[in-house]
Order: sequence, then C-alpha cells, then structure tokens
Amino acid sequence: MSDEINSNLLYSTKYMREDFLPNISVDCVVFGFHDECLKVLLARTEGEKDWALPGGYVKKEEDLLDSAKRILEERTGVKNVFLNQFMTFGKVRRTESFFKGIPDDVWYKQRFVSIGYYALVDFSTLKPIKDIFSDACSWHDVDMKPNLVMDHNDIYDIALQQLRKDLNYKPVGLNLLREKFTMTELQRLYEIILNRKLNRGNFYRKMMRYNILTKLDETKKGGAHKSPNYYVFNMEEYNKALENGFQESW
Amino acid sequence: MSDEINSNLLYSTKYMREDFLPNISVDCVVFGFHDECLKVLLARTEGEKDWALPGGYVKKEEDLLDSAKRILEERTGVKNVFLNQFMTFGKVRRTESFFKGIPDDVWYKQRFVSIGYYALVDFSTLKPIKDIFSDACSWHDVDMKPNLVMDHNDIYDIALQQLRKDLNYKPVGLNLLREKFTMTELQRLYEIILNRKLNRGNFYRKMMRYNILTKLDETKKGGAHKSPNYYVFNMEEYNKALENGFQESW
Repeated sequence: MSDEINSNLLYSTKYMREDFLPNISVDCVVFGFHDECLKVLLARTEGEKDWALPGGYVKKEEDLLDSAKRILEERTGVKNVFLNQFMTFGKVRRTESFFKGIPDDVWYKQRFVSIGYYALVDFSTLKPIKDIFSDACSWHDVDMKPNLVMDHNDIYDIALQQLRKDLNYKPVGLNLLREKFTMTELQRLYEIILNRKLNRGNFYRKMMRYNILTKLDETKKGGAHKSPNYYVFNMEEYNKALENGFQESW
Repeated sequence: MSDEINSNLLYSTKYMREDFLPNISVDCVVFGFHDECLKVLLARTEGEKDWALPGGYVKKEEDLLDSAKRILEERTGVKNVFLNQFMTFGKVRRTESFFKGIPDDVWYKQRFVSIGYYALVDFSTLKPIKDIFSDACSWHDVDMKPNLVMDHNDIYDIALQQLRKDLNYKPVGLNLLREKFTMTELQRLYEIILNRKLNRGNFYRKMMRYNILTKLDETKKGGAHKSPNYYVFNMEEYNKALENGFQESW
C-alpha cells in the first residue's frame, strides 16, 4: 500500500476501535443488468492497482443488514437496493497479503470475518459515486471483470453462483426489464445471468408454471417472424413468490 | 442465569479473550432423519430451563468452518457431519435478554454476530454426549421442538427453510435411507422434510430427470400392491450433483 494510505489508516484506527465491531466486515457484490448486459460494481482504493468489492465495517449499535446498506451507500453512492445475504467468509488469512508492510496493530490489519451480500439492479438507473478512500467506483462488464484484491475474486464467484441458484426459487426481472416484455426478452435475461443458452420450450413451460406472468393481447411489431405477445408481471403472484419461493418444484 | 453458571462465566472470561475472536459466534442446527422421523439436536445449559442450539466461539487461528466442526463436536460429541453454512445473524440485541443480570464486561455478554450452519444426518448413528456446560444434549422431534433461548427459534426456522430450498438443487438421501430403497421411501423422506404430501407422478418424473438413481430389477416383496422396484443412488452422478447442483431446472 502507498505511504499516504498507510498514514490515513493509522490515523483512523482509534476512531474505528471506538465505533465499530472488531474482526467483522461486510462485502457487497452488486450485479447490474441493462439492455442484455451484466455488470458488477467495483471500487478501487486510492493508490491501489487492483479493484475491490465495496466493503466496510459494522457499527457497534447497528444491525448487520443496516451496516450493509450504509456501507454500500457510503462507498458507492448506491442506495435503495435489495441486498441478499449469501455467505460469510472466515478463512484465517483471507486479507493478510493485502496489508503487508503496515504495522500489525493497525485496526484494518486484524483478521476479519466478512459477511457477503449480493444484489441485482438496473445499472442504468444507478450512477456510482466514489468515496474519499477510492480513486474510482464504476460498473464493469462481468466478461471483463478485472482481478480483485484479497479473496474478493472468490466472494464474487460465490455471489454469482448464488444468484444463479436463486433463479430456481425466486422471481427476477422486475425493474430489470421494461414494464412489458416478450418471453424471448425474459429468456435472454436468464441466459445472460446463467451464461448459457436455454431451451425455448422448457423455459416457456417452466415460466408459465411459476404463475407470475400475465400474457397481454398486445404484440411486439416489427420483427421478421410472427409478432410475439407481450407479458407483464402479475405483481401479487410475483411478490408472493419473492416471499415464499416458487412452490412448483416439488 | 444461576449463580453457579455466573461464576463459571466470569472465571472463563480471561481465557476467552486470549484465545477467541470477540463478537463472533457459531450456531449449529443438526437435523436427524431415521425411519420416517425428523429430529433436531439440542443442548441445555446447566441451570437453564430452555434448550439451545449447540453453539460456541471462533478461535483466533482457526478457519470459520473448522470452528463450526470443533464446536459441534465439543458441545455434542457429534463429528464427521457435513455442515452447510446458511446464514449469519447480526441483530444488535439478539442475545441481550439471555445474559440479564450478569456484569456487562463479561466476555459472553457482548454483542455476537452468529454464523449459522445446518446438517442433515442419520440420527440413529450419532449418539449425542453433553459437554461440561450442559445438563443435557439430545435429539428432539421437530413436531415437538421446545422453545429455544435467545433468537435460536429464528435460527432454527431459517435453517429448516434453507434445507427445504436446498432439496431443489442438491441431492439428499445418502446415509439417510437404506442402501436400496423404493421410490415411495424416497418420496417419504422429501415429504417429511417438506412437511407436506407430494404428487407421486410429479415426484417420480422430477427425480428421474435428476439422473441420480439407478433402478434395480429386484423388487420389494410383501406389500398388498404390486411389488415396487428398488433403487440405489448412482454415486458418480450423485456426487456431481452435490458439487454442481442439479442442472435440470432451466
């Protein structure tokens, strides 16, 4: 780490000890989707070469989920996103190499068990703002994700796995697609998240069994093929499924 | 808490500060299945009326998962179970009422963020042994689960929800059923975990799509109906699905 950061860290150690729980941190993996593109929100600490997931620490008098929301907003300016806790990372030396060269008693250099949260949002509506510790904060195509610091590559990978698993029992798509969308557009969202082609017939049948879509009479004009129908989400069923998970599986 | 426990806690505070991370704990929800019965493993602290999930603390030089395994073994004698991390519990006052009456500076009375692990095992093969802090450690029918201390009822509920969700993308049954089993016996396992009846035809089709079963020519004799075939797990496919999750969903 650079000398300047180094002295910032030392300076803030006393303040950290007073206000924050030791040994516990939060990292946020915010995926953004818009117009057939999947991105991830990353920050780069001043003086660092590598990017990092936006993360931070838990205040002594703050519920864990509130910490995650505050941290994401402080670090990136992004607020009002639904954060899903997905895993806690607790290897003893997960951050050690990052803090090489700074004194051992600095607060940041202790062992941190980090709780991971992920979200999926429309990136076109959320403009990141860097905080005072960062020289950049921005959306990155997942296909060209840069190398990340510490164990953040692992945290990212597991967040993406969890998002893919969650497609099986939670609805997605609201706020990511236009209000009216074709079945092909919805399938593309799933294909982009899963990073593989899906069978059109299977997708249609499964999606209809989930019972969260209302088919409109209106069709999308202008293609070479038969005009496809538009769908909208049935919000009552969508919200029920968000809360209870899809029941169709068994 | 009783006076005796109280002095034990004070006595051990110094030792805890030296060897363990502050503010971080682990709680284990171990579900047991055998012969159509689902149970949960609980411990009762000496002098306490209510039962608790077996839990404990993370050593400074110990990976989180190793802590969970050690804690489960120390508290209950149960070892060699596969622990799934499912959620971390971080409300500010989640344990406060439990430690009412003991001095504020006692190590145990601080705020703890607790990482939850669950397992599903054959309870007939795992005999719990109580530790020195407990007056009992035993299996309890989930239908007659007693009230638990602190937020352990919530932790239990969320573990059970997670186990049910996990049925959708992970195989279960190995080590819980006899080596050869009928489709009805497998279906009963799922029904008992889900606590609802399943449609026989849907269950059969879904299970066969998962591709983890091998049908034997051998049939189970003795029933009133046509003798049903036995199945065994195809271990190669079963282990692949354990690692990667079921791929059939989309």
